[in-house]
Amino acid sequence: MQLPNPISWTPAGAIRLLDQTLLPAEERYLVLDSVDAVAEAIRTLRVRGAPLIGIAAAMGVAVAAGKRGGGAGGQGGSGGARDQLGDVREAVASLGATRPTAINLHWALRRMERRANRAVILGEDLAPALRAEAQAIWDEDREMCERIGALGAALIPAGATVGTICNAGALATGGIGTALGPIYHLHRAGRGPRVVVPETRPLLQGSRLTAWELSRAGVECTLIADGMIASRLRLGDVACLLVGADRIAANGDVANKIGTYGLALAAKAHKVPLYVLAPTSTIDPAIPDGAAIPIELRAPEEVAEWRGVRAAAEGISVWNPAFDVTPAELVTAIVTDRGVVPPGQISRLMD
Amino acid sequence: MQLPNPISWTPAGAIRLLDQTLLPAEERYLVLDSVDAVAEAIRTLRVRGAPLIGIAAAMGVAVAAGKRGGGAGGQGGSGGARDQLGDVREAVASLGATRPTAINLHWALRRMERRANRAVILGEDLAPALRAEAQAIWDEDREMCERIGALGAALIPAGATVGTICNAGALATGGIGTALGPIYHLHRAGRGPRVVVPETRPLLQGSRLTAWELSRAGVECTLIADGMIASRLRLGDVACLLVGADRIAANGDVANKIGTYGLALAAKAHKVPLYVLAPTSTIDPAIPDGAAIPIELRAPEEVAEWRGVRAAAEGISVWNPAFDVTPAELVTAIVTDRGVVPPGQISRLMD
Repeated sequence: MQLPNPISWTPAGAIRLLDQTLLPAEERYLVLDSVDAVAEAIRTLRVRGAPLIGIAAAMGVAVAAGKRGGGAGGQGGSGGARDQLGDVREAVASLGATRPTAINLHWALRRMERRANRAVILGEDLAPALRAEAQAIWDEDREMCERIGALGAALIPAGATVGTICNAGALATGGIGTALGPIYHLHRAGRGPRVVVPETRPLLQGSRLTAWELSRAGVECTLIADGMIASRLRLGDVACLLVGADRIAANGDVANKIGTYGLALAAKAHKVPLYVLAPTSTIDPAIPDGAAIPIELRAPEEVAEWRGVRAAAEGISVWNPAFDVTPAELVTAIVTDRGVVPPGQISRLMD
Repeated sequence: MQLPNPISWTPAGAIRLLDQTLLPAEERYLVLDSVDAVAEAIRTLRVRGAPLIGIAAAMGVAVAAGKRGGGAGGQGGSGGARDQLGDVREAVASLGATRPTAINLHWALRRMERRANRAVILGEDLAPALRAEAQAIWDEDREMCERIGALGAALIPAGATVGTICNAGALATGGIGTALGPIYHLHRAGRGPRVVVPETRPLLQGSRLTAWELSRAGVECTLIADGMIASRLRLGDVACLLVGADRIAANGDVANKIGTYGLALAAKAHKVPLYVLAPTSTIDPAIPDGAAIPIELRAPEEVAEWRGVRAAAEGISVWNPAFDVTPAELVTAIVTDRGVVPPGQISRLMD
């Protein structure tokens, strides 16, 4: 099973990133060796997917820490470490300002900053410590994907067709994905479901990314436009829906890619189970419910243009929220690395 | 108020057609002087919208009748008229095979064929008789749009924002439109609502056509992607939804552009009234319910490509129904030229 590697280290300690804006036409890798470059890549969705944004940001912080003093040995001196800590905090602030909705970004940055503080207190070399911490975040995400995949797989009937939205697969995580995790888990065992993939406008993460990574891996999939979701569920051949999450509030409300809420309403109308699959780093216990989750509004051109060519009439206004909130009561269960829970009990996992 | 003229006669009796596939980038008019050209234009959506397809097909039959014998006077001889009648029947068959879902097409073609038969029996010149009949279909549609506009306008609160889908405006009819009729009716009186326009994938009739004709006419509108509909209704600023129809079954089930059903489910969840606006020619009393309405499946490329450039991953399958069916229970009322009725009572209008 061939899955893409959306992110990795270069031998020199920079970040090698698959530019997802160019998929599926072109598989081009960028080398990012500054915080600014990582921030730009996150803002422009060259790297996207809540867990992968967290990993990329953590790696970006490690890159920032490696800039000063250079060399694997670092400087060790407390003056150098203090300057490095300043760089780290600047990197955390800059990367934290790139996108507001996915909480994994802030979770990963907070963890990196805590690790940096501890390194300074302990007199450790900052750069290797932060590099190891970023690697740990990535490794843990890969593990969480595996556990989510195994737990989610148990919810999918044999020989089923399942639906998803956007991309919560290998291109969105450090591993086999969250929503797509159970699909790959079953596919590896030769029992993979077929997948109905809504194209996910405006940026087509469904048709450009999910369809690409699924078909590369040998999973059979069918592309539909987003407006076809309700009709497809009425057909009766979709056993369940598997979606990711960008932030889960304490009450189980789920922010995810715009379109998820409409999909959830259609799922309810047709009694199709809706599973949200996400690592526990996606849960934000500080947010009581979905209404408090900040929703990113993106540029009008994403809807009105196609590769720089105007598709819509000139001069009209555009509303372009990148995410929506699905109320907990529309979610059948949330599948995390720590277990499958009803959405109303999600905060229990954080104890 | 400037509305487009999507169809007209040329002085020579051919059809001048606005090629809607090129909008909004280019406003190009084609001259169609054969049934084949009209059939091609309907099949490729150069002309679309259930009422306008009916008008275009009727005009196409008139063009066919004018081919033989030439001249305004016709031949009058019974041999010539019989040949012409054969041409008419061929035209009706050919045009009737272009698109399966919109019933107005078949309604208009049956009417043209009946008129042709009567002309032959009465010894009338076929070509001018059919030209007048096509013109009558067009004129009546324009009148029906005005009545629908006036009746629908009464349902829209002052200062409201309304939503729609696809294009059921001047570009879809012989007049001010069906779903957009009430908007233009109010706009002429200086009380036009603002309009939320879903782009309507795959062919973007919302962003390319509805946004274009509304903004040309001076109506304020906001474009959204189809997956944003449910979120937008949750915002609470959309007073009602106005949609067209391609066929209405005897029980009030409504076939309309794909995406309408999902919009109807979101409308129900947010208690936003959903009005279906259509001329009575859209009602098909021979079809008991929506399950019996034939749904056109169109080419995969419409979803997977953009102006000939592949947007989706290669090699995946695509499901591309052009229409869906909204069950009568999700429709607040159907607004026709003969009155506003609950969907369950639509067949009363046909008595």
